[in-house]
Amino acid sequence: MHAYRSHTCADLNKSHAGQTVRLAGWVHRVRDHGGVLFIDLRDHYGMTQVLADGDSPAFAAIEKMKAETVIRIDGRVKARDESLVNPKIPTGEIEVYVTEVEVLGAAEELPLPVFGDLDYPEETRLTYRFLDLRRDSLHRNMMLRSHVVRSLRNRMWDIGFNEFQTPIITASSPEGARDFLVPSRLHPGKFYALPQAPQQFKQMIMVAGFDRYFQIAPCFRDEDPRADRSPTDFYQLDVEMSFVTQEDVFAAVQPVIQGVFEEFGGGRRVDPDWPLISYADSALWYGTDKPDLRNPIKMQVVSEHFRGSGFAIFAKLLENEGTEIRAIPAPTGGSRKFCDRMNAFAQKEGLPGMGYIFWRKAEDGSGMEAAGPLAKNIGPERTEAIRVQLGLGEGDAAFFLGGKPEAFEGVAGRARTEIGRELGLTDENSFKFAWIVDFPMYEKDPETGRIDFSHNPFSMPQGGMEALEGDPLKVLGYQYDLACNGYELVSGAIRNHKPEIMFKAFELAGYGHEEVEKRFGGMVKAFKYGAPPHGGCAAGIDRIVMLLADTANIREVIMFPMNQRAEDLLMGAPSEPSNEQLRELRLRVLPKE
Amino acid sequence: MHAYRSHTCADLNKSHAGQTVRLAGWVHRVRDHGGVLFIDLRDHYGMTQVLADGDSPAFAAIEKMKAETVIRIDGRVKARDESLVNPKIPTGEIEVYVTEVEVLGAAEELPLPVFGDLDYPEETRLTYRFLDLRRDSLHRNMMLRSHVVRSLRNRMWDIGFNEFQTPIITASSPEGARDFLVPSRLHPGKFYALPQAPQQFKQMIMVAGFDRYFQIAPCFRDEDPRADRSPTDFYQLDVEMSFVTQEDVFAAVQPVIQGVFEEFGGGRRVDPDWPLISYADSALWYGTDKPDLRNPIKMQVVSEHFRGSGFAIFAKLLENEGTEIRAIPAPTGGSRKFCDRMNAFAQKEGLPGMGYIFWRKAEDGSGMEAAGPLAKNIGPERTEAIRVQLGLGEGDAAFFLGGKPEAFEGVAGRARTEIGRELGLTDENSFKFAWIVDFPMYEKDPETGRIDFSHNPFSMPQGGMEALEGDPLKVLGYQYDLACNGYELVSGAIRNHKPEIMFKAFELAGYGHEEVEKRFGGMVKAFKYGAPPHGGCAAGIDRIVMLLADTANIREVIMFPMNQRAEDLLMGAPSEPSNEQLRELRLRVLPKE
Repeated sequence: MHAYRSHTCADLNKSHAGQTVRLAGWVHRVRDHGGVLFIDLRDHYGMTQVLADGDSPAFAAIEKMKAETVIRIDGRVKARDESLVNPKIPTGEIEVYVTEVEVLGAAEELPLPVFGDLDYPEETRLTYRFLDLRRDSLHRNMMLRSHVVRSLRNRMWDIGFNEFQTPIITASSPEGARDFLVPSRLHPGKFYALPQAPQQFKQMIMVAGFDRYFQIAPCFRDEDPRADRSPTDFYQLDVEMSFVTQEDVFAAVQPVIQGVFEEFGGGRRVDPDWPLISYADSALWYGTDKPDLRNPIKMQVVSEHFRGSGFAIFAKLLENEGTEIRAIPAPTGGSRKFCDRMNAFAQKEGLPGMGYIFWRKAEDGSGMEAAGPLAKNIGPERTEAIRVQLGLGEGDAAFFLGGKPEAFEGVAGRARTEIGRELGLTDENSFKFAWIVDFPMYEKDPETGRIDFSHNPFSMPQGGMEALEGDPLKVLGYQYDLACNGYELVSGAIRNHKPEIMFKAFELAGYGHEEVEKRFGGMVKAFKYGAPPHGGCAAGIDRIVMLLADTANIREVIMFPMNQRAEDLLMGAPSEPSNEQLRELRLRVLPKE
Repeated sequence: MHAYRSHTCADLNKSHAGQTVRLAGWVHRVRDHGGVLFIDLRDHYGMTQVLADGDSPAFAAIEKMKAETVIRIDGRVKARDESLVNPKIPTGEIEVYVTEVEVLGAAEELPLPVFGDLDYPEETRLTYRFLDLRRDSLHRNMMLRSHVVRSLRNRMWDIGFNEFQTPIITASSPEGARDFLVPSRLHPGKFYALPQAPQQFKQMIMVAGFDRYFQIAPCFRDEDPRADRSPTDFYQLDVEMSFVTQEDVFAAVQPVIQGVFEEFGGGRRVDPDWPLISYADSALWYGTDKPDLRNPIKMQVVSEHFRGSGFAIFAKLLENEGTEIRAIPAPTGGSRKFCDRMNAFAQKEGLPGMGYIFWRKAEDGSGMEAAGPLAKNIGPERTEAIRVQLGLGEGDAAFFLGGKPEAFEGVAGRARTEIGRELGLTDENSFKFAWIVDFPMYEKDPETGRIDFSHNPFSMPQGGMEALEGDPLKVLGYQYDLACNGYELVSGAIRNHKPEIMFKAFELAGYGHEEVEKRFGGMVKAFKYGAPPHGGCAAGIDRIVMLLADTANIREVIMFPMNQRAEDLLMGAPSEPSNEQLRELRLRVLPKE
């Protein structure tokens, strides 16, 4: 017989009754039922009930065992009485009578229990991650992640992409975030950087002629802590294709992502309709470029109904250039109590409040009436016009925000989310996707008036060189995001592969020829020797797994995460270097100021 | 029609004759055949011949085009005359008459040609890697690597392993080589390290209960340059299993590696017989722990034939303790010319020479005779006894080396290789594997007399605690390598998962309890709370691909390699950090001494 096991803890069923078997695993739980010890023996695959009565030579040893001891047992399989069968686990038809037990790995008193669902402080969990990971929910999350990554890979291979690894110790390439640096010992005083993304390399792979690349790629950003992101590194499904338009990228990526959500969504509905929504429409309709389309509410511009109306605040506001009034329709929200609660929400978000109208059965029973201070101020005609525009009726409400859209869009978006959730309009049991397209290439800093890139400087401007010769603020990029349930899941672009258009695009943002050459020299050089049109995207693995596992904490989907201060409590990182290490790198750590 | 292509450059055959198509790709070569321009248009998938005659509106544009320009052409497919069909390429039945051409990516004069097999200096090739990679051999190597990695992954999944990613920004864990350090901005003065291997993490994954782990893992070592290794990072197939013995690891890994060599070996024979050879036997028989078994030569100890013999050098040498005489049999090597050449080889390797005997037809025609000075010195009886022991005959030779085995084993091994190759005994057209087992746990420093670990300190000593209480130099470890064609392809061990045995093992090598806790605190901690017996191995991806691609230069199998001075010539790394970066990290670069 094998030294440790003849079967796993998920293998045995009543067909094995009568056999002598060997199992190994962790002592999940021991119960003493009047002189008989019941052990739940656990391994990666499952759980088997093994037992020892007072006659068993193993009884004494088992009696003393601490939870999480690793043991090997020999024993005889017995079918359970019909009435004792546990249909919830594959081994529920049997139990194993122990004849011999061996401790393979002893356990001290646990700082963190594996059995049970008690919540423990995150610091304890991370310090004893090897115990934390034995808990069922984390074990399942890790397996989910592993299978999701596998599935993504296979799906990419199946549609003709090839996976290539790109360098991890490489050049600094400022893409917005801070680089992690790696001092060079062979070239003291010089530093490598860890890639914020394999952006330049994947474009180089296209220039090298490989046509369709993907990689499950580690990315490194030295960012300040935030609950929903890892403070050091993350993984993305990185994709690039040659000779493609934006639509080709969508057509390639949708089946992959949709397939993975169908495969691992646990029965939640995956909407196959992925609308294209322009950045401008998304801001207007949803107050964000990451809309949650499970929520059916769509905001509308209602400025005309307030212009010159008796609601002075809005009427005056509309006299300023660039202002608008927008409505958030709230079907079924037609009660003063609900409207007041939402108003309070807006105040908590820093606004003076949200005006509202709601429609109820008239008090005299003669039909419907509009209620709320706003309705009174603008009068019944305008109120009715608003109702008609928004398609609302009795029992519904609408909320109103005004000003410069940039100033209130964010709050409007959050109010929309809140309203959808409060009213139960949001279909929590589904995944809804949308491609957000037509991002503006540039934006103006409201204070300095300086023009800068809004997003990725490597994207191809729509209209090419010609467009760049007009008003930069009107230039849209072939740049896109995929939104899912309120999160950005994918981001990408058709790249600017023509050096002359690239230089011009940078020039508009105030970067001279020389600076572009210096910062992106490798890529500029590559584009001079026959670059194909190309584009791609990157999908966040952590985010995909978080959505599938239905958790908002990124540390629930990473095997060995840092804490929020970017420390590895288990391995003890970062730590002080030795003097010899510093000497070899010719570095000195300066004292705190 | 699609903006760039209706077909790839490998798609068209005579069934498309008459169709109007759109192709895009690189201008591989243009030939002018009396007023008709023939272009080999190349993309990732293949090559298509397109042509323009003087009537074509595209003629003038094509005439001016530089090699490697990226173009889009529209044209009509024509079947070639039977006599002009090129059976070597899938599109050899057709050609495409260009009606329109568009330059998608212009090309300047190339610093490195893509067409043709000219050798270029490596610095040029790395600086323009995007061009270098367009060359057929490199393109094929990268695709090979990509497919090998895919196949390894699928094979691991198929036998029940799960892939998990382990941290890249982590703690320093001295495993023999130098760490790359990453200064922490949030904790100035402290440093992370890049993992030399995920050794501790994969063991932690076993302690966490995941049973079977693998990863195609990046590993980082700050090592001094060498031709056959990357100076910064490399990839390994990293494997770990719980509840296993050494034999279980072999049984899991052999089909994976063998399968990949069969799949990608290009018809070279993959020997399914993987013998287990002890470290001691390997040293004796092959003079190395990475034997090339394609070479049938096996060395033997022949000390007894020389003890007290007339060959004074060996006879005297054998009077010293620990000395031996070993023979390298050289079937078919029985000529003075060959023997002298091998003798010269040994001298070049720093030895005074190699004694030899060879057997030839006796000059008087009366049968076989032994020739060479050595045979004369020891006399016919001893010579014959040697011949019989080595199983040699007429036309064969044997070479002899003596002294302390440690001193001559290396040269003996290289001489064996040389002899096998020179005599054509080595079957170049095959892959032969062997597991090298029973490595000694400890070795004694010949100068200081200090006992230290010979290999991996985390391996389980054979015989456990008991063995550690005897002579450390006699302790063998459950440690193993896989040798293939003279290279180490895999290395692994059954781990020491019991804290008390681990502390004892370190103590023998002079590491106190405290130091072990300090250096491997995370792992020691993990072993206290129920650790399963576990073991695994790691296989070098670069090495596997190099063997399959039949190249000795690691830069032929890496997409974007560093040069041998650990510089990325394409992206310009390492480079000077900005003052702000150094300030944020609180670091100062010291001037050169």
